[in-house]
Amino acid sequence: MAAETHLCHRIDGLQYAAWSETIFRQMREGGLDAVHVTIAYHETFREMVLNLERWNRWFETHSDLIMPGRSGADVRRARELGRTAIFFGFQNPSPIEDDIGLVEICHTLGARFMQLSYNNQSLLATGCYEAEDPGLTRMGREVIAEMNRVGLVVDMSHSAERSTLEAIEHSARPIAITHANPSFWRPALRNKSDDVLQALGQSRGILGFSLYPHHLQDGSECTLSSFCEMVARTAELMGPDKIGVGSDLCQDQPDSVVEWMRTGRWTKRIDYGEGSASAPGFPPMPKWFQDNRDWPNIETGLRAVGFSATEVNGILGENWLRFFDESFGPIQDPAP
Amino acid sequence: MAAETHLCHRIDGLQYAAWSETIFRQMREGGLDAVHVTIAYHETFREMVLNLERWNRWFETHSDLIMPGRSGADVRRARELGRTAIFFGFQNPSPIEDDIGLVEICHTLGARFMQLSYNNQSLLATGCYEAEDPGLTRMGREVIAEMNRVGLVVDMSHSAERSTLEAIEHSARPIAITHANPSFWRPALRNKSDDVLQALGQSRGILGFSLYPHHLQDGSECTLSSFCEMVARTAELMGPDKIGVGSDLCQDQPDSVVEWMRTGRWTKRIDYGEGSASAPGFPPMPKWFQDNRDWPNIETGLRAVGFSATEVNGILGENWLRFFDESFGPIQDPAP
Repeated sequence: MAAETHLCHRIDGLQYAAWSETIFRQMREGGLDAVHVTIAYHETFREMVLNLERWNRWFETHSDLIMPGRSGADVRRARELGRTAIFFGFQNPSPIEDDIGLVEICHTLGARFMQLSYNNQSLLATGCYEAEDPGLTRMGREVIAEMNRVGLVVDMSHSAERSTLEAIEHSARPIAITHANPSFWRPALRNKSDDVLQALGQSRGILGFSLYPHHLQDGSECTLSSFCEMVARTAELMGPDKIGVGSDLCQDQPDSVVEWMRTGRWTKRIDYGEGSASAPGFPPMPKWFQDNRDWPNIETGLRAVGFSATEVNGILGENWLRFFDESFGPIQDPAP
Repeated sequence: MAAETHLCHRIDGLQYAAWSETIFRQMREGGLDAVHVTIAYHETFREMVLNLERWNRWFETHSDLIMPGRSGADVRRARELGRTAIFFGFQNPSPIEDDIGLVEICHTLGARFMQLSYNNQSLLATGCYEAEDPGLTRMGREVIAEMNRVGLVVDMSHSAERSTLEAIEHSARPIAITHANPSFWRPALRNKSDDVLQALGQSRGILGFSLYPHHLQDGSECTLSSFCEMVARTAELMGPDKIGVGSDLCQDQPDSVVEWMRTGRWTKRIDYGEGSASAPGFPPMPKWFQDNRDWPNIETGLRAVGFSATEVNGILGENWLRFFDESFGPIQDPAP
């Protein structure tokens, strides 16, 4: 199994753990060459910079385990060096505030994904928990064009249906839904309709399957085979080269963090989001995906539902790697 | 003359003009391959980012004339592309505020020079207008080590004598005095003693000669031959490979800008700095250096006082280029 593991690059399309040497070592044990990590939920630009500073310290302290990731080439370099390349993203456009000029600044600082909205209405687009979805805003269209220009990927994981379809249509470059599942399998505001998934696939976009229990059939009790059968059905809808994994692993986070993710500073009340008053915290992860050492389980599960070795390699990393290669450089130079 | 011009790279070690297409075109006419430009006098981190955004717009709008500069390789690339590479610097450590983590963030954003103090005492070192100079502060020593690590050059142009000597001593990498002249030629608080110049040269540092009239013998009436004779005397003191030009050209700036440079937000009163109540504004530049098209005059003047063609090439750019090559990368990799 270990030898097979190293035949393909392994990339996780989203994590937000309470980072530590333990987790970085588990990434290495799981053979992860790259992880897209969240560095902002509701942070302003200035607050996001403080999060970057924390990562800079980790890069310095744990230079044997992790390194900054900026391009597909960095994923290959990380593999050669035996490290995990860390790519930054925002789950909300809050770090660009009301200033389109911050798009390029954030890209220069290493951001490679930005969600246009997080559950709520933003200056750019609508979130999946709003009652109404008027689609992309005026600023939203301008910011997408600027993101396209510099190589900052549009991510619509937490956005509403119409806004998502309009983003796919308006963006000159393929977009990502880094962490969500099809609603045909688990109906949830955060999961995506067949319409969205088909439009995403046809535009050469990419979906990262989430392992966060609220996005799974039967929640924390979801079985590996149910998950992998869902992957197979989605591959038929989108193509096996347009899908990957975005685990949404929030390992070791205290429940105060899920409250921050849900309420930020937009309300003074409690909002339970996908949780409830009786279960307000992080749900337990499925038994077969507790942390980064459990990636081989997914590999086994995907083979068991009939995917070829090449297809599994694609889903576990090569599809993300191709997407990274095509997405992170300036638009004038699509293959930097 | 035009053919000879293109035998060496031409680099200006400091300018702070009211940037415009006119000035960018004059840089091209003068054959400048690189210019170090000031993007902060008293700005906080967040304000400095707004100045970066303005530069990003200029890079986009005038991509035929200018490009961002990050390394010596960019100077060579700018030459090949027929553009001028723009390198960023701060005249004051105000953009790092009280946070050593902002050193690396600023370097990532493109900053390549930072003065440890601007006329006044800072958190790091003493400025040349203070009555007392207690030398580097505790934070100053820490920040120098961090600047050394990431490749952000210590610039002591506006710093006081003891602080400057201690910075040269404490820094593990050569430092710069980007724009100043020897005080043996023009006694002025901003100009540098023989002790400083000798220590700078012995440590493989570099001095950029200023063309700002307050730093010149006879001010705006300074003759080209007086300037070039001073360069020759300084070359004897430091070596002809440790000197360059840092013109301090403030072309087209209104006098409100020199007031901002001098007073920032540290006083509510007027401080005339190197000026006076009767001459509070920018002084007129010498007739032989009105703008970037006048670089050939300096070349002619330097040849006339006996410098060889190779030495002139060094002073007009090759010395800076070598310094850039050795200074802007991480310390682990001194020749990136």
